[in-house]
Amino acid sequence: MSTPTLKYRNQPTTKLEDLRHDGAQRILGIDPGLRVTGFGVIAVNGPRLAYVASGIIRIPNGALPERLSVLFEQLAHVMAQYEPVAAAVEQVFVHRNPSSALKLGHARGAAICACARAGLAVAEYTPRRIKQALVGTGNADKHQVQYMVQSLLRLQGNLQVDAADALATAVCHAHEQRFDCAWAGEKLIS
Amino acid sequence: MSTPTLKYRNQPTTKLEDLRHDGAQRILGIDPGLRVTGFGVIAVNGPRLAYVASGIIRIPNGALPERLSVLFEQLAHVMAQYEPVAAAVEQVFVHRNPSSALKLGHARGAAICACARAGLAVAEYTPRRIKQALVGTGNADKHQVQYMVQSLLRLQGNLQVDAADALATAVCHAHEQRFDCAWAGEKLIS
Repeated sequence: MSTPTLKYRNQPTTKLEDLRHDGAQRILGIDPGLRVTGFGVIAVNGPRLAYVASGIIRIPNGALPERLSVLFEQLAHVMAQYEPVAAAVEQVFVHRNPSSALKLGHARGAAICACARAGLAVAEYTPRRIKQALVGTGNADKHQVQYMVQSLLRLQGNLQVDAADALATAVCHAHEQRFDCAWAGEKLIS
Repeated sequence: MSTPTLKYRNQPTTKLEDLRHDGAQRILGIDPGLRVTGFGVIAVNGPRLAYVASGIIRIPNGALPERLSVLFEQLAHVMAQYEPVAAAVEQVFVHRNPSSALKLGHARGAAICACARAGLAVAEYTPRRIKQALVGTGNADKHQVQYMVQSLLRLQGNLQVDAADALATAVCHAHEQRFDCAWAGEKLIS
């Protein structure tokens, strides 16, 4: 089995240390796929968000068990390195192509198990909800979402598509958590 | 989250101790499903097979991450208890219904990761190959396969369908291993 490619781009940029000292918590967003899985870690403290890391796990061709094992182990490695306290993935209900649905299911199953194994609760969000959290409308296109991810997290340069989707899911989770706090009667900071 | 139902039926019947002393190795067969996952463990020593255990993991309704976590943990429990050295699952290429394919993919992803995590190599076999190994023809129906599982492993009473499918996959793996040995120039015992 060849060594999988694990790429980290966009090294931490701003205010990370401040957020860490301020009781910030990290959220891992995952965009699972059997060829490429994107991940993104953000730090959240109330209304403040900061980019921590993002990248892709490129899974080499091979037998399915080996590929899923690589995905599981590499995600475990990402979690050990960045210590998120929660994880979020995009929810999928249906898929047009049964064969693609099966492959996606395999990757999602492995990714969710990796998080559960690391003791992280995993939240799922529909694509519509993610777009709404980022852009304000569930009909936003991919470019708008990507633009908002870069803008909110103050990122420069190109962001890989899968990593951007993963970061968007993490930002959505941060947004939903604040919303939940507001409903629970806590002070809504943002 | 309610406690999942883990059922073991058909307690060990014959010659298990003999096989253990004789260098027998255990194979775990899994029939993954998001509602019910079947498993079966057999002991193999050359041409000799013996039943060790089988059962189903019944996964309670709930959020997908919780369900996959239950499946992962319960399979880990089964592996810790029965100490198989290899695992086998039925291979799936296509599925008519995209929604069912996605669910099956989730369960298969979790099951395969549980095995990989426990250090077990996972082999996949097509339904046709499993039927051929058990009944001698790839066109055999489910009842013939179930009959042969019970006959080969000398099992009495009713066997749950999912557990029987899992045992059939394990028997197929044992069969293929012998076949591989024969091709490698080793003495073909059976």
